[in-house]
Amino acid sequence: MQRIEHHASFGGRQEVWQHASTSTGTAMKVGVYLPPAALKGEKCPVLYWLSGLTCTEQNFITKAGAQQFAAEHQLILVAPDTSPRGEGVANDDAYDLGQGAGFYLNATQAPWAPHFRMEDYVVQELPALIEQHFPASDARGIFGHSMGGHGALTLALRHPGRYKSVSAFSPIVAPSQVPWGQKVLKAYLGDDQAAWRQHDAVALVASAKERLPLLVDQGDADEFLAGQLKPGLLQAACEQAGHPLTLRLQPGYDHSYYFIASFMGDHMAHHARYLRA
Amino acid sequence: MQRIEHHASFGGRQEVWQHASTSTGTAMKVGVYLPPAALKGEKCPVLYWLSGLTCTEQNFITKAGAQQFAAEHQLILVAPDTSPRGEGVANDDAYDLGQGAGFYLNATQAPWAPHFRMEDYVVQELPALIEQHFPASDARGIFGHSMGGHGALTLALRHPGRYKSVSAFSPIVAPSQVPWGQKVLKAYLGDDQAAWRQHDAVALVASAKERLPLLVDQGDADEFLAGQLKPGLLQAACEQAGHPLTLRLQPGYDHSYYFIASFMGDHMAHHARYLRA
Repeated sequence: MQRIEHHASFGGRQEVWQHASTSTGTAMKVGVYLPPAALKGEKCPVLYWLSGLTCTEQNFITKAGAQQFAAEHQLILVAPDTSPRGEGVANDDAYDLGQGAGFYLNATQAPWAPHFRMEDYVVQELPALIEQHFPASDARGIFGHSMGGHGALTLALRHPGRYKSVSAFSPIVAPSQVPWGQKVLKAYLGDDQAAWRQHDAVALVASAKERLPLLVDQGDADEFLAGQLKPGLLQAACEQAGHPLTLRLQPGYDHSYYFIASFMGDHMAHHARYLRA
Repeated sequence: MQRIEHHASFGGRQEVWQHASTSTGTAMKVGVYLPPAALKGEKCPVLYWLSGLTCTEQNFITKAGAQQFAAEHQLILVAPDTSPRGEGVANDDAYDLGQGAGFYLNATQAPWAPHFRMEDYVVQELPALIEQHFPASDARGIFGHSMGGHGALTLALRHPGRYKSVSAFSPIVAPSQVPWGQKVLKAYLGDDQAAWRQHDAVALVASAKERLPLLVDQGDADEFLAGQLKPGLLQAACEQAGHPLTLRLQPGYDHSYYFIASFMGDHMAHHARYLRA
């Protein structure tokens, strides 16, 4: 772990680290916000943020305004990059496949399988590193935006017991049923649609072993709402399964970080409630 | 005035406008945040933000986290670009001269004089436009960062009665005495150092006609502190002149927007107190 950036922020410190990942076989960058209590060595819960398509570790740490709430609730905030990157890593000219579009799963298909192992990275390798190098407790929460909202929901549903809290902004809730998801699931996992459903929140909710309450915010002026996001599918699946969901349709809000920042305080309070319970 | 961006944000709306400026003779972009009360048509005070070297209108609106406080205090926030730009506008390869480095003054020297008229633009033209097109009262405040902190301090000191409140983050307080300032003052205003002192906060404080209280925050880990910023010169000048100054040296903070965001709430509360008095 090598620290490549650090800035005082709201009494704590925003850092960026780089390390060689055994999951992806590449160098990975990750934003780590340490709240004031962590700087004093007190163990703090860790909240993982997963970003959307095209993002790096920078978007969240510069635009979401989350540090003030992490300082208030004394949470460590961890924001990894969205995929492996670099020469020798497969890529595609489209913004929604390959580098910047890891979709938080382990690819099984060529040419993606060697490096695109973001599920292993986010669920196992990164928490182990964080808990080793920082004053982190083993209370973990996860949230994200768009592709990262998909990541937060599916990883929490696929790994019962691993997370104490989960939430999402404008998530892709049913990748099996929308163009963004169908394109990457076919590329990364092949034609077997049973494999796709293992990475589809709407499908996973039906058989979830743990009924972790979901908090989802969605702007109703989001250009991707009708075509790619379809939160109504998650609402129907949760009602069917009896899975607790708070879905808030926010009038006038779009898909941008302006939307995320506007409701960041609510999400951080939600996570703090569970992570400090 | 043409609106080129709009996003719901904290119950209000972050917009970006473009217009042909008579001051600069170029198209200028400006960020305008309208708080919830302004969206309902209530007249609100206007707080002008001046950014630092290399910035456009985007840096502040995406990174400073000011919208939440503008919504809380019902202030309109206006963040212009830092200089004229485009083909036909003089420029320099250095980041600290020409486009992105307008220094909030009217240049008198070739090749800068035709377009580099940021003082006229910020003090006269832009407020007239804002007060015509938006539900703006004539209560104006001004603040900024680094070169923009210089702009806020000098414009408030040069135009008594124009602003009800002023503050700065990491301002260049004495451009006549530091490399950044000496380079641009010579380029924009020529060799006459009496002209330089008209755009130097430390020099202006001595003869200020109005004793508007100054709030200045400065990080003590700022890489530009000793060489370019020198807030001690402002402190000495204010003590000498009996000018009210609150100068806070913030331990561990650097020159970045992480610093700005950390103390944005304090600055917005300071402005609200005067703008709503």
